[in-house]
Amino acid sequence: MLDFGLRDERILTDRLRKSAVIPDGSPVVLGIGDDCAIYRPRGSADDLLFTSDTIVEGIHFERHSHKPAELGRKALTRSLSDIAAMGGVPRFCLVALCVPGWATDSQVNRFFDGVLALAAATGTVLAGGDLSHGERLFCDVTVGGSVPRGAALRRDGARAGNELYVSGQLGGSALGFATKKGKAWKRHRAPEARLALGQFLRGTLRATSAIDLSDGLSLDLRRLCLASGLAAQIVEPPRFPGASPEQALHGGEEYELLFTVREGMKVPARFGDLPLTRVGTIVRGTAGEVLLNGVPLTTLGYDHFSRARFVP
Amino acid sequence: MLDFGLRDERILTDRLRKSAVIPDGSPVVLGIGDDCAIYRPRGSADDLLFTSDTIVEGIHFERHSHKPAELGRKALTRSLSDIAAMGGVPRFCLVALCVPGWATDSQVNRFFDGVLALAAATGTVLAGGDLSHGERLFCDVTVGGSVPRGAALRRDGARAGNELYVSGQLGGSALGFATKKGKAWKRHRAPEARLALGQFLRGTLRATSAIDLSDGLSLDLRRLCLASGLAAQIVEPPRFPGASPEQALHGGEEYELLFTVREGMKVPARFGDLPLTRVGTIVRGTAGEVLLNGVPLTTLGYDHFSRARFVP
Repeated sequence: MLDFGLRDERILTDRLRKSAVIPDGSPVVLGIGDDCAIYRPRGSADDLLFTSDTIVEGIHFERHSHKPAELGRKALTRSLSDIAAMGGVPRFCLVALCVPGWATDSQVNRFFDGVLALAAATGTVLAGGDLSHGERLFCDVTVGGSVPRGAALRRDGARAGNELYVSGQLGGSALGFATKKGKAWKRHRAPEARLALGQFLRGTLRATSAIDLSDGLSLDLRRLCLASGLAAQIVEPPRFPGASPEQALHGGEEYELLFTVREGMKVPARFGDLPLTRVGTIVRGTAGEVLLNGVPLTTLGYDHFSRARFVP
Repeated sequence: MLDFGLRDERILTDRLRKSAVIPDGSPVVLGIGDDCAIYRPRGSADDLLFTSDTIVEGIHFERHSHKPAELGRKALTRSLSDIAAMGGVPRFCLVALCVPGWATDSQVNRFFDGVLALAAATGTVLAGGDLSHGERLFCDVTVGGSVPRGAALRRDGARAGNELYVSGQLGGSALGFATKKGKAWKRHRAPEARLALGQFLRGTLRATSAIDLSDGLSLDLRRLCLASGLAAQIVEPPRFPGASPEQALHGGEEYELLFTVREGMKVPARFGDLPLTRVGTIVRGTAGEVLLNGVPLTTLGYDHFSRARFVP
């Protein structure tokens, strides 16, 4: 979504957010600024969620870094993760693919094998898209999902005193990107969208807010705090085996969920195989400020627009 | 939408159409194969329409061929035209933009000026998107729209005996692309989506089918016939001043609407300033075959995937 930077890009997204006025009576309930937009169809029991995420050759991946099927899977995963962060059920996707000159028919077919396998596994119908060609691979995936009316998990729902949790172990994707080895490299190439967890957070745990860690804990937590107008105090998050504290704090492409619950809410230690770990508390303070063990945490993380990718 | 080729691309889109199964009970009513996908929200009085269209630098435009605001406008127009073809009211859009290294901040701002001005004029809320960067400009625009439940105009609704009409005068965009001069060049750079006409065709005229002429009459009429399992007999369509018969028959990026009505339906000669002209009849025959003055018409038109752009 149009909200993943804090420097140059922030100026543009702030401008777009202010310009993109939602008129009274519009079925658009929530526009720019969260993981998904929210649309309320006339008379429906459901709200619909929409998100669009792109992968660009040379920026998000290199030609030989991923197998074609992995790339198709990952392109869809990024958008599914936005649906997961708002507690939604994915319903359909549109895939716009610019096929580069270097790609063979077989590679294009395997790219779609990856998309279709994950789509089938998650109940997401490939309902359309657009094909074109160019020098470099570019793929934009739009996903539409649903939640019961009014129930979407948003970034702006955190309240002072809420307890902050994270799923999984962090830093694996950044470690894998750096080493190109072992389980961390696999984690980087084949992340998972936490769809079942998101639905559990929304329906059972009644989480007050959530965001996915696509751009790293420090940046995404700052966004959640900014949206909620609050600050956060955290301790070190659980680390992927071998990952550094910096990789766990700032590394992007994790696709784990960061969420808040009301004080005293009983959160299970695991959701299936996935650990859920308390990492801090939402507090009053300067909106967006994050304190790690009492010290202000610098925001790093992935910002496409400023071209400053966090590389460990 | 994933359906704009008849050669190489056809193999891939056919494969995707077959693979992208819509399970029983899915809210997706119509997937790959029309201008938009159709989604039926639980309990709603409306169906929702979704489409995604991309523009790629070096394919759909050259760096200096369009002003940035024109380009933003055109990127949105392409998707709005798909909504128009199904008789929908546009509700929101998601804009995924890959900003090329050559673009200045001012150019990016003006690109979005073009998007936002057309969005405001058509009631389309800019509800999100994704920003990235790369070597070349790439922009994918998803638009969501609505129609009363079950009322969307589809390609597959034509019946033998239906009368075939087209809006506007054809060939102007191809002429402008060739000459870079005068009104035709303006038409190429700043086409309009026929939203009000689409809603009139659906609501008042009860058209039986429609498609937008994004890829040229010969190709798009063939698609409408294929979808409906029928053939068509046509005469020369009305020509944009200065356009050749070939430009009018095969030139793409017109964004006029081609539609069918029941035999004897009274179609006004104009809709506002826009002429509506009878160009033929839907007939039984080889599915997809088009006869021009009784002679089979070769399909030309824009096919991204085979890299064979029609240039007059």
